[in-house]
Amino acid sequence: MTDTPHDDTHKEGPSRRAFLRGGALAAAGVGAGVGAARAATPDPLITEVQPWAQFLGDGVDVAPYGMPIRFEGDVIRRNVEWLTADTISSINFTPIHALDGTITPQGCAFERHHSGAIELSKPDYRLMLNGLVDRPLVFSYDDLERFPREQHVYFCECAANGGMEWAGAQLNGAQYTHGMVHNMEYTGVSLRTLLNEAGVKPEGSWVYAEGADAASNGRSIPLDKALDDCLVAFKANGEALRMEHGYPVRLVVPGWEANMWLKWLRRLTVTDGPVHAREETSKYTDLMPDGRARKFTFVMDAKSVITAPSPQVPIRHGAGPLVLSGLAWSGRGRITRVDVSLDGGVSWQTARIAGDAKPMALTRFYLDIDWDGSEMFLQSRCVDETGYVQPTKDALREIRGLNSIYHNNGIQTWWVKPDGEVENVEVG
Amino acid sequence: MTDTPHDDTHKEGPSRRAFLRGGALAAAGVGAGVGAARAATPDPLITEVQPWAQFLGDGVDVAPYGMPIRFEGDVIRRNVEWLTADTISSINFTPIHALDGTITPQGCAFERHHSGAIELSKPDYRLMLNGLVDRPLVFSYDDLERFPREQHVYFCECAANGGMEWAGAQLNGAQYTHGMVHNMEYTGVSLRTLLNEAGVKPEGSWVYAEGADAASNGRSIPLDKALDDCLVAFKANGEALRMEHGYPVRLVVPGWEANMWLKWLRRLTVTDGPVHAREETSKYTDLMPDGRARKFTFVMDAKSVITAPSPQVPIRHGAGPLVLSGLAWSGRGRITRVDVSLDGGVSWQTARIAGDAKPMALTRFYLDIDWDGSEMFLQSRCVDETGYVQPTKDALREIRGLNSIYHNNGIQTWWVKPDGEVENVEVG
Repeated sequence: MTDTPHDDTHKEGPSRRAFLRGGALAAAGVGAGVGAARAATPDPLITEVQPWAQFLGDGVDVAPYGMPIRFEGDVIRRNVEWLTADTISSINFTPIHALDGTITPQGCAFERHHSGAIELSKPDYRLMLNGLVDRPLVFSYDDLERFPREQHVYFCECAANGGMEWAGAQLNGAQYTHGMVHNMEYTGVSLRTLLNEAGVKPEGSWVYAEGADAASNGRSIPLDKALDDCLVAFKANGEALRMEHGYPVRLVVPGWEANMWLKWLRRLTVTDGPVHAREETSKYTDLMPDGRARKFTFVMDAKSVITAPSPQVPIRHGAGPLVLSGLAWSGRGRITRVDVSLDGGVSWQTARIAGDAKPMALTRFYLDIDWDGSEMFLQSRCVDETGYVQPTKDALREIRGLNSIYHNNGIQTWWVKPDGEVENVEVG
Repeated sequence: MTDTPHDDTHKEGPSRRAFLRGGALAAAGVGAGVGAARAATPDPLITEVQPWAQFLGDGVDVAPYGMPIRFEGDVIRRNVEWLTADTISSINFTPIHALDGTITPQGCAFERHHSGAIELSKPDYRLMLNGLVDRPLVFSYDDLERFPREQHVYFCECAANGGMEWAGAQLNGAQYTHGMVHNMEYTGVSLRTLLNEAGVKPEGSWVYAEGADAASNGRSIPLDKALDDCLVAFKANGEALRMEHGYPVRLVVPGWEANMWLKWLRRLTVTDGPVHAREETSKYTDLMPDGRARKFTFVMDAKSVITAPSPQVPIRHGAGPLVLSGLAWSGRGRITRVDVSLDGGVSWQTARIAGDAKPMALTRFYLDIDWDGSEMFLQSRCVDETGYVQPTKDALREIRGLNSIYHNNGIQTWWVKPDGEVENVEVG
């Protein structure tokens, strides 16, 4: 794994010593109420004027485009070296264990490439729309900006998210078990608008989408979906897409597996059936126990995970008030409910959903507990607006066997030990 | 102004020539319909296999934390050199002209510092809550993470946003006239929760908030507001606050001027009245024509601006379909309506609001027009849920005169010339 060690040294020199003393005081303060009576204890961070209050900081010309502060240097995408033969046709993982809220910053949103991330400028960009249409069209980037725009927040999840876990708990960290997902606000043109501009012939029933990279990653999309909510997107979280997410234009296919969200979108061909391309036959299909394969399993079913505490975020403050924070999402619509278990699925409490639960978007949930300091087996289980309930991993295995790579949305278990360390385990 | 020139050269060598030819074709294609019949014209970007389809791109280990692609190198914060004596106690501007949607990425969200951006680590962080409370408290960063969390999207606007425009059109660009605003999803603890933990004494009626930087920037906040919707925030857009936005903890005061959103939040003192500190007397007050000053003008009234086209985003494609994109916001709640004028306020059309208009958050609006190629005087005028209508600059000046620096929410005019260039003007 690519690791950048957390750097918590200081520019102005203060006070590894102060930090350690502060840490001890913090532990002492917890009990009657978090932070209670802390003011009565001498703490140099309170009683002494600190360097940051004595000297000027950085001016407004220092970082025309700002990066995270160096103390957050471990909140990065990470890849797992043994997972793929090289880093070009590979994946890395969003640090979901260290994020909160729902938006994923582009800078740490996972990447999955089949022939690497390419650099394609707006002047060099073309989008062809052909096949079973009345008027084949080619759009420049500037052309796309002239059509009415929409904006929506959607999650984008790789079908292989959690794929390593089919055979049991493999990877120790929410970043690795669930980090092939991100959630952004997209701005773009409805694919419906462009298809209508070209005029789909009556016999058109699918759209084959390809990227401009060498892999091209062609995928067949049913016309109904293409006309429903797909976006030809050029902005994410307000700004241009990052190169690694398909700059300047990617296809957004809400709720469906990320492999269909063509990056560097180059061509859309209206066809009278699916193409049965490599990425929807030998890959991105689900090999069942009897040797047959489920094909065109587009929708990402409801899924949830507790992001903190989790193996990369142990509990350091001991017993007492503890926030459990997690994410839930469904490719079929809104999340309506999340339940959390502390005892490996024996009993459940309903979590609090923060903010509005948008359809096909990451939804944040919290459960505030008073931890007694004994071991816990944390699980979360979500329900979406169709009534679908997130299954256990065993329930999935009973039907799908152990040959699958994709579409593992089973319930995750974190074993929290009395010392606060957390481990990826299975119960039951 | 700090400018990074746009770099549109290419790594693999293609094709300034192709770009120029492509551009010419694009211009030829517009008319019958955007992009129509483009496929019939030979275009090397379509007919020839391009380098990005022949070679591998970057692997997933190249950018553990990704930055914008180099072609977007001009989408950055910019400061205006003559505006302040130095860059430490100064401001820079969000490139709102180049963004779309509603979320502002932290990396290009404006900065305003009074003694520079300081580097303060989580271990070194303390928040004191004292004054008229039953139990004075000191919280470490880890303490704050143990309280129930909330998340909300809010705009943050400097009271001086547009301040240079009181005397007439001064700065040529939406980034400079309206760019002291950003919009993020915050995660944090309700200030009410912390105040309740300390227990506010009956005589407590205000809260005085201070930062850990040398300027400390103390501001008085009425207790009602503090107990209503203020947040002690530690995440923005999912990840830790950037250093320049107050890492590790800032105060969020929804809908109220950004100067009150204390960065590097150090202390909250419950008082029985406002402190009348520097930043709420000699600064951040509105000097009226009669020499008196409006004080405690906290709320940012409803405001809107067309972000594109605008002086930094001229129209390059000539007459025909054109998207007008803009932002509206109100410190008093939701935006309910935006009207757009093409003729300097003589006639108005209702714009389309994209997505949900959240209270006290940037709201994106669009108007899709068929531009006839003649000059336009673009204006936008918004209405919020209280019924407040954004005023003209002249209407504001009639009451407030020309001494003001702050709280200019007047209607902006962009003069679009037949050649597509855009200029900041006033009509009247």
